[in-house]
Amino acid sequence: MNFPFKETRKKILSGDFSGLFRPVKDTGFIHPSEVAKLFISIPPEKAIEAFKSFQTEQELKVFPYLDVQLQKKLIRSLTKERASYLLNALNSDDRTIFYSSLKGIELSNFLDLLDDKNRSDLHKLLGYPDKSVARIINTEFVTISREMSVGEACSHLRKFHADNDTANVVYVVDNNGRLIDDVPIRRLVLNDAEKKVEDILDGYCTTLKITDSMEDAVEKFKEYDRVVLPVTNDDNILLGVVTIDDVMDVAEQRDTAEIQKFGGIEQLDYPYVKTPFFSLLKKRAGWLIVLFLGEMLTATAMGYFDKEISKAVVLALFVPLIISSGGNSGSQAATLIIRAMALKELSFKDWWYVMRREILSGLSLGVILGAIGFIRISVWQNLHWYNYGEHWLLIAFTIFFSLIGIVMWGTFSGSMIPIILKKLKIDPATSSAPFVATLVDVTGLVIYFNIAAILLKGTLL
Amino acid sequence: MNFPFKETRKKILSGDFSGLFRPVKDTGFIHPSEVAKLFISIPPEKAIEAFKSFQTEQELKVFPYLDVQLQKKLIRSLTKERASYLLNALNSDDRTIFYSSLKGIELSNFLDLLDDKNRSDLHKLLGYPDKSVARIINTEFVTISREMSVGEACSHLRKFHADNDTANVVYVVDNNGRLIDDVPIRRLVLNDAEKKVEDILDGYCTTLKITDSMEDAVEKFKEYDRVVLPVTNDDNILLGVVTIDDVMDVAEQRDTAEIQKFGGIEQLDYPYVKTPFFSLLKKRAGWLIVLFLGEMLTATAMGYFDKEISKAVVLALFVPLIISSGGNSGSQAATLIIRAMALKELSFKDWWYVMRREILSGLSLGVILGAIGFIRISVWQNLHWYNYGEHWLLIAFTIFFSLIGIVMWGTFSGSMIPIILKKLKIDPATSSAPFVATLVDVTGLVIYFNIAAILLKGTLL
Repeated sequence: MNFPFKETRKKILSGDFSGLFRPVKDTGFIHPSEVAKLFISIPPEKAIEAFKSFQTEQELKVFPYLDVQLQKKLIRSLTKERASYLLNALNSDDRTIFYSSLKGIELSNFLDLLDDKNRSDLHKLLGYPDKSVARIINTEFVTISREMSVGEACSHLRKFHADNDTANVVYVVDNNGRLIDDVPIRRLVLNDAEKKVEDILDGYCTTLKITDSMEDAVEKFKEYDRVVLPVTNDDNILLGVVTIDDVMDVAEQRDTAEIQKFGGIEQLDYPYVKTPFFSLLKKRAGWLIVLFLGEMLTATAMGYFDKEISKAVVLALFVPLIISSGGNSGSQAATLIIRAMALKELSFKDWWYVMRREILSGLSLGVILGAIGFIRISVWQNLHWYNYGEHWLLIAFTIFFSLIGIVMWGTFSGSMIPIILKKLKIDPATSSAPFVATLVDVTGLVIYFNIAAILLKGTLL
Repeated sequence: MNFPFKETRKKILSGDFSGLFRPVKDTGFIHPSEVAKLFISIPPEKAIEAFKSFQTEQELKVFPYLDVQLQKKLIRSLTKERASYLLNALNSDDRTIFYSSLKGIELSNFLDLLDDKNRSDLHKLLGYPDKSVARIINTEFVTISREMSVGEACSHLRKFHADNDTANVVYVVDNNGRLIDDVPIRRLVLNDAEKKVEDILDGYCTTLKITDSMEDAVEKFKEYDRVVLPVTNDDNILLGVVTIDDVMDVAEQRDTAEIQKFGGIEQLDYPYVKTPFFSLLKKRAGWLIVLFLGEMLTATAMGYFDKEISKAVVLALFVPLIISSGGNSGSQAATLIIRAMALKELSFKDWWYVMRREILSGLSLGVILGAIGFIRISVWQNLHWYNYGEHWLLIAFTIFFSLIGIVMWGTFSGSMIPIILKKLKIDPATSSAPFVATLVDVTGLVIYFNIAAILLKGTLL
């Protein structure tokens, strides 16, 4: 059953494309995703050469599984007629996804290849916001009317529908194209041919609006356990369907973007291995510079305390420990809150609940870390591993109280900043953990040196 | 079409459960997931009371959508007969998922409620590893034989199959139960009743093995764009099916766990709002203490350089800036690599490619940050905003070279540690960004003070 990947790859590289056609062990065909995986693993020129050896039907199946960069190269390498045929014959969702990735002159050149109907459909869909379900809608679907019998509905289907995934569900519409209900095709099989369609409706139909965000679609698919959902406009006219495979990709991209933002990187447009060195560098340098400029405030802050440091060098020793504790507790809180908001478990109205909970958490965690710090200093001093001077106990208390203050401040700002950003309609993941950490670093220093100034006044300072 | 959520909630809280039954606007029924959402939003006692007012069929539909804690409370509150009926009548995947969350005495008490067949099935499934597809398998499915006609297959379906999601695809097996092919039910509708089943097979059937991990299942569903996949054992005997809704949940849980580990928190078992205060505290305190103990090494490291610091207090001012730059570049690299590995874009064999790329990135990023640091010091000095003393230029060079060294070291360790952990079969997300940051903090200090010692020897030091 396994596709001889390496073998076929070797053959293709030597210019022999036969392996792409032969049924595997004579029992089946090669799945287009296998072919695509293979194409992506070889130099683009080779892949294009092999692709050109395909029949149109095969082309159509493999194309949607390729990555955008290869898709673009491929289209450019085809004759205008063939490129035009291919793009017009794609499923509408694959077509929209492909065109959504194009910009400017490239977009308009590729639009010229479409026939009038497809071009105007696409224009309409590209007019909807970047993140709306319009970008993943599939406009091939079958409708039936409630007056048909189950048998008639089946022959209607046979007449009008190709064997593809959107055919798992058919839609009952009225004469104006308004959606009445959806019927899984299995229900047609499970009922007698003489029954009327309207008698097998369950009257419950979850729909998406064309202006809904893709995020909303992810939630709806999850909540209602559906594999395909109809999309309507404000007048409840059925415009198309969205299938779960596209929605899974959206969910995965959302999570990848969220993770990358947590890591302090701009969201990548392509996978790590596909991103050219310099665009990767740009994505990383941006945030790194912003964070660096932010952290430069720590040098300024410490500059204000240089007298204190020169009087009590011992204070400097704990600076990394103190600020990293604030940073770590802050990014914990930010992570929890951002993810909970992304999964719609929390929203702005919960801020008071979150704040109380996080302040209490911060207090508890601060006391724990503070106690460890206190013990660390006492043990090192009394076992003579390091000499903090005669006022070591005061230093230990400075560390204890500073940690409590800083960890509380860390959990507080780590949890509140994402909630506030969300309210301001800024993506909370952008206030990513390192951003919170930087903020907490700077303010943490101020807290630390002020507590030191109070406790050590008259002794060390 | 919208379910009157708030209204119904209020009614239920006052003991009136009628809103749960009435068809919404007389056009449809209430989707079980709506009911579940409502139940989760009210005190458990009320939800249980309302649940008890249901007919069995409704109970069965709503139960799988509830969260585990409410499910357990509910089962305990029912009479033994009713609890037993409910648990036996559930879909097998929902049953396995529920029992997978139980442990020890609780598990054996609840197992007693099952009939012999279900109990032995479950025992078998729970015997497979925690993360294998056995935990989400659905054992209700319909098989047909290749000798049937399409019409016979349809009547067979009508006779043996209820209207649920697994009925979107039927399976062709031989006399020994070995899987031959899968047939989407729509294909039965789209072909003439007289055709033989074997003539409508495409010979291509993607399968899961019962021992495959759930992660593998996520990849397969994504790669082949399927909504349900058959599960077989080593002899190719069909054991059950896995549906995409369960797989989407698995993918989401994977991403949540990954994000939480990035944030330096142990993976939560329940959503933030559902996790009791003290177990949340435990999840957070664990890593925070580990990181704190790690960061204590910074105090030790700085202790070795206290002479240098007291001679040149100015060095201390840049400590937070220096180490956070190393930490940020390290967590960027770790984030990129961990995510790329989770999505199978990278594996161990790519280490050499990744290493070259990351060292080069680190060098470029280090030069950028170093230059900014250098400029910062020069500008502050020459505009008299801060006085770094007569050797300010040497200090500026110290910062410049330290940043290059530390950022390179950060990207290097941030990218290599996850790859090495993966090779050691430890989840790379556990070497989460803060862990890398802590490592880089400690070693970064050593790099910084050594560069300072070389450059400032004979002047400041």
